[in-house]
Amino acid sequence: MTDESPLHALFDPRSVAVVGASDNPAKWGYWLAKGALSGRDRRAVHLVNQRGGALDGVPFRPRLTGLPEAPEHVVVAVPAPFVRPVVAEGLAAGARCFTVITSGSGTADERALAELVTGGGARLLGPNCMGLVDTTTQLRLSWGELPVGSVGLVSQSGNLALEIGRLLARAGQGFSRFVSLGNQRDIDAADALESLVAHEPTRVIAAYVEDFRDGRRLARALAAAHAAGKPVLLLTVGRSPASTGAAASHTGALVSPYATVAAVCREAGALLLESAGELVDTALCLLSTAAPHPVSTAAPHPVSTAGSQRPSGIASRGGAESFRVAVVGDSGGQGALAADAFAVRGLAVPELSARTTQEVAAVLPPGAGCRNPVDLAGAGEADLGSYARVARALLLGGDADAVVLTGYFGDYASANPAQSARECEVADELADAAGESGRALVVHTMARDTPALAVLRRRGIPVYERIEQAATALSGIARLTRPSMDPAPTRRATSPVSDGSYETVRDLLCAYGLTFPAARFVTTADEAVDAAHLVAYPLVLKAMGLAHKTEAGGVALGLADADALRAAFLRMRAATGARRFAVEAMATPPYAHELIVGVRRDPAFGPVAMVGLGGVTAELLADTALALAPLTAARARALLTELRHAPLLTGWRGAPPVHLEAAAAALCAVARAAAEHPELAELEINPLLVHPGGAVALDAHGVLA
Amino acid sequence: MTDESPLHALFDPRSVAVVGASDNPAKWGYWLAKGALSGRDRRAVHLVNQRGGALDGVPFRPRLTGLPEAPEHVVVAVPAPFVRPVVAEGLAAGARCFTVITSGSGTADERALAELVTGGGARLLGPNCMGLVDTTTQLRLSWGELPVGSVGLVSQSGNLALEIGRLLARAGQGFSRFVSLGNQRDIDAADALESLVAHEPTRVIAAYVEDFRDGRRLARALAAAHAAGKPVLLLTVGRSPASTGAAASHTGALVSPYATVAAVCREAGALLLESAGELVDTALCLLSTAAPHPVSTAAPHPVSTAGSQRPSGIASRGGAESFRVAVVGDSGGQGALAADAFAVRGLAVPELSARTTQEVAAVLPPGAGCRNPVDLAGAGEADLGSYARVARALLLGGDADAVVLTGYFGDYASANPAQSARECEVADELADAAGESGRALVVHTMARDTPALAVLRRRGIPVYERIEQAATALSGIARLTRPSMDPAPTRRATSPVSDGSYETVRDLLCAYGLTFPAARFVTTADEAVDAAHLVAYPLVLKAMGLAHKTEAGGVALGLADADALRAAFLRMRAATGARRFAVEAMATPPYAHELIVGVRRDPAFGPVAMVGLGGVTAELLADTALALAPLTAARARALLTELRHAPLLTGWRGAPPVHLEAAAAALCAVARAAAEHPELAELEINPLLVHPGGAVALDAHGVLA
Repeated sequence: MTDESPLHALFDPRSVAVVGASDNPAKWGYWLAKGALSGRDRRAVHLVNQRGGALDGVPFRPRLTGLPEAPEHVVVAVPAPFVRPVVAEGLAAGARCFTVITSGSGTADERALAELVTGGGARLLGPNCMGLVDTTTQLRLSWGELPVGSVGLVSQSGNLALEIGRLLARAGQGFSRFVSLGNQRDIDAADALESLVAHEPTRVIAAYVEDFRDGRRLARALAAAHAAGKPVLLLTVGRSPASTGAAASHTGALVSPYATVAAVCREAGALLLESAGELVDTALCLLSTAAPHPVSTAAPHPVSTAGSQRPSGIASRGGAESFRVAVVGDSGGQGALAADAFAVRGLAVPELSARTTQEVAAVLPPGAGCRNPVDLAGAGEADLGSYARVARALLLGGDADAVVLTGYFGDYASANPAQSARECEVADELADAAGESGRALVVHTMARDTPALAVLRRRGIPVYERIEQAATALSGIARLTRPSMDPAPTRRATSPVSDGSYETVRDLLCAYGLTFPAARFVTTADEAVDAAHLVAYPLVLKAMGLAHKTEAGGVALGLADADALRAAFLRMRAATGARRFAVEAMATPPYAHELIVGVRRDPAFGPVAMVGLGGVTAELLADTALALAPLTAARARALLTELRHAPLLTGWRGAPPVHLEAAAAALCAVARAAAEHPELAELEINPLLVHPGGAVALDAHGVLA
Repeated sequence: MTDESPLHALFDPRSVAVVGASDNPAKWGYWLAKGALSGRDRRAVHLVNQRGGALDGVPFRPRLTGLPEAPEHVVVAVPAPFVRPVVAEGLAAGARCFTVITSGSGTADERALAELVTGGGARLLGPNCMGLVDTTTQLRLSWGELPVGSVGLVSQSGNLALEIGRLLARAGQGFSRFVSLGNQRDIDAADALESLVAHEPTRVIAAYVEDFRDGRRLARALAAAHAAGKPVLLLTVGRSPASTGAAASHTGALVSPYATVAAVCREAGALLLESAGELVDTALCLLSTAAPHPVSTAAPHPVSTAGSQRPSGIASRGGAESFRVAVVGDSGGQGALAADAFAVRGLAVPELSARTTQEVAAVLPPGAGCRNPVDLAGAGEADLGSYARVARALLLGGDADAVVLTGYFGDYASANPAQSARECEVADELADAAGESGRALVVHTMARDTPALAVLRRRGIPVYERIEQAATALSGIARLTRPSMDPAPTRRATSPVSDGSYETVRDLLCAYGLTFPAARFVTTADEAVDAAHLVAYPLVLKAMGLAHKTEAGGVALGLADADALRAAFLRMRAATGARRFAVEAMATPPYAHELIVGVRRDPAFGPVAMVGLGGVTAELLADTALALAPLTAARARALLTELRHAPLLTGWRGAPPVHLEAAAAALCAVARAAAEHPELAELEINPLLVHPGGAVALDAHGVLA
């Protein structure tokens, strides 16, 4: 290992000590000690228990002092009151990092613990964590048997790690490294992810995070992982009040809105998934390579860290719609259901070119279906080689990015054991064809654990028990895009705003280049009428300082002359009690649409920009898109065109398109203003009127942090 | 068996003959013969092969003639040219039904075969089918080993049946009866479903159908199944052009639009699912009963056929939102992810009542999370009985319709075999609690095939490997509603319409009670001006006989006086070349919304009514709902309120609600008119203007069949 990261002592210490070691299999201290001992060939292992005892012939020492060498990595599993004394002793003995399993000591105590550790120049994992495992350095400091493989996992839930491990093991995969984060009092998710980006044996990164801490740093870690060819597969909570509350009591997490996390993942080139199962299915697909090497070898397939190129052609694509799947089944029904499973997830199941169709037809008997989905119609049963020949034609034909075998292959030997050897040969032929093509081959089969499936798995071909697993995995990978975050640094504005009023926010946004209608701010009816000369009729009168202007009678539109203005003024002042008013030009450009644009400061991710369809049906349409602020013009434009109702903006039913560049520029301006003014917790333009000639903000306000 | 249905000879014949029997395991004739012989204790079995031979000591007879008794059920697996001669011989020998495996003889030949069989007073299953199995009568006339259980399956795909069988077997379940439909030349899906409704050992019905044939009869069979407490779980194709094309070549199916099938399922109380896996997961959940009887017993749990009451409290509910799930995990992370998995599928994960929270807290140590999701936080590890105590409190507490255990339970004995007996005991305690409560208990576990899981399965508790399986199954069941089809018979109108023009369709719909604006039909400008006196200004002028009036300049709105009308008339006649025109009152009620209402005749399901949001954004909103026509007023109203944008109709942002009863009545009228006029392939009102005072049709047309 040449890993020289600051956390090297965490993952490959020269010596390890387990404090709270036990010989009772019902205790954590037993499993930690047992795991630590499994790495004895590579490092010194010391077991500490003040009451004495022994495990596997290794006597427990009473304390950390007096060891033959400094314990580089100390694992602590003692009752809460003893944790800090143990850590102090460890620091004195020269420990460089501590993994604290113990939970339940309270926030203040945990902070004091972290200060103690970091103040002593060491690092802390936990507390309230489940330890860590590095299968590439024989470091096992956790509970449960975690299988060995190429997936690096960072998790705030120990049981979830066990579940992911079980599912990976059933597919012949496992972990390169597992870091249980616990309450992240020092080492956090971003640290752990960074360690995995640099960890060569880790080929795919998985994470379960409830609390994103420094979200911006985490987002950069996600983007770095993508750039290293190891996109992160992320699970998180927050889609229901129930899970948000559970996370708050589980790890004290301040849960970010799920939509925010989803937006961050899109921008950072990570995939947000729903469950352990989805995560494992997707990981298996990412791990599959076209190269004919077994995935479970100790020497992993080398991964370039220079760009987002991956050995197989299935990552970093332009979106699900452009990802093409060819389906092959020995059953018309299963092929048709498979086609639908891919299509409803947004993947293309295209017609095959005439040439590919001919090539498929050339290797199948009459009666087979040579369209996509291809239906062997019994040809597989008659000659197992049909599968390999058809798959090869499709993989090399260039009509599809992935070929999916669905249904029966893998199970022929079950009914007729004489077919087993041939079925295994065909499995190898399938993997060869995938390797040659550089495209993805994925197998859905009703079989489980047959020799042919073992061959496929050994050759790195993902095998799924249900067609929806294959479809979810491929559609996830098809959604993977290059990171698109704005790399420009954000400066903090030198003159913060002092309030969130329309007048202040309007001035701020004008300075950032946003357009508002001409306006004058007045306090009396006479001033209003005077101002009207500078603004021009028809105009708008708005009361200032009201939370819900329109509902309170604080907006009058289309005032045609001085009399109307004066009458509106008096009525509005009486109704609202407002003391300041804006007299504004009336903007009524044709073919206009109302957008709502806002920026809200997330506790973890900082300013997050939102754009959505506005107007009276905005709430009903619920059509919004999010991105980290600030953002580039290209990203802003993409946000607008991602809206479900974007066709309204781009020339619906013969209407001229709105000025998308102007709309994107306005969105950028608002996002940058908010990013550079951290004193604002919220900033909102509602509505932003976009039209063929440009974009004009009709109202705005801010909320101070 | 007391089954006296007309298909009795199919499922429990006194004698069976397999024509095309073989001693070669690579041939169908081997498996059919082998399967038939397995029922020798119950019935006479004759094997026929003109070339002679024997299997398991039973000699092959050369022909069907000369048997000691009539072969009630004849299975035919001979090359296509020999099928009809064999059938003729069988009929002569007294056969009552034929199952024809042979495929590839072409449509005309298949029709002739069906005529031959039915003309001889017998019934035909197939051709191109995979046979049938009735595990309750020891009739096995198919390929592959199908497991025994309580699921009745009707399928147009043999491999899909094998896949479903595999998945059921892994959960300790299987088939009561399996009918492979093939090309449905006589016995069709509705026949097979009807047989399963009457088949007592069948407790859940599953179906894969590509071609619905007599869709109305099929819908009635689905509704009858629901009424018998055996809701049908249906798979079909048609969500992509790829699957539609595949089905057309697979079984020659005329695929109905997927949205139509989905609407039929909702109305008939069936569940449309996506894959074999989803189907099996949902079936297991439906099979689970609160009663503490094993599900795999030969004596099935009695099911009332009188209504839709089921033994467990999980079927026939009012919709997903009202279905409440309580989650219990020994891990905060898994519990939170589970809560989200249910919530995103529309199920409620409610807060627990104070009383239930107290009861949960009373059986858990401090530090456990007593909200929903409940987090044992290690209490399960310390005392397995915690699971049963918490589950009991939640099952009996009344705050949830289903309790879901997520994560670790079932696997404790893997790390510590000493816990196995206790874990099995707790599994029994869990099943007891579910049984007493009459509510559903569902288990998601990272374990596979452990003794505790075997106990749960034996006790009828569904066990899933992935949380999304549990969530999909429960949300499917929550969506099950009582059949809502209009039971009123449809009479055929005595006077069919002769064309689909606006004038004709308007007269027709007026007769059915629909309101149109006052109108006069004219051919000259003078007639138009005369007519205007009867209609009143401002008015609308429309050209008749154009496909796309508006685009062609064939509509003029808001004509204020005779001059404007005359000018518009001349302009319109010149632009469109139309010869007839409508002079109509202009309907501009305030707070109006445009709907589109249509009826289209589906080849399988007949007239299907559609209602959707209209206007220029209709296509973008894509917000429509379907139902079989005719429909009741209640169903019509429900369709309107099912629309995503229904809040626009019911008083959005302070606007008065539209007259929903009038809108529903209009929908009923159009649906009934179309149903009673089968000469119309399509009938459409666009727009139907709905407003607080009523509903008025502004345009309409029909298409003759």
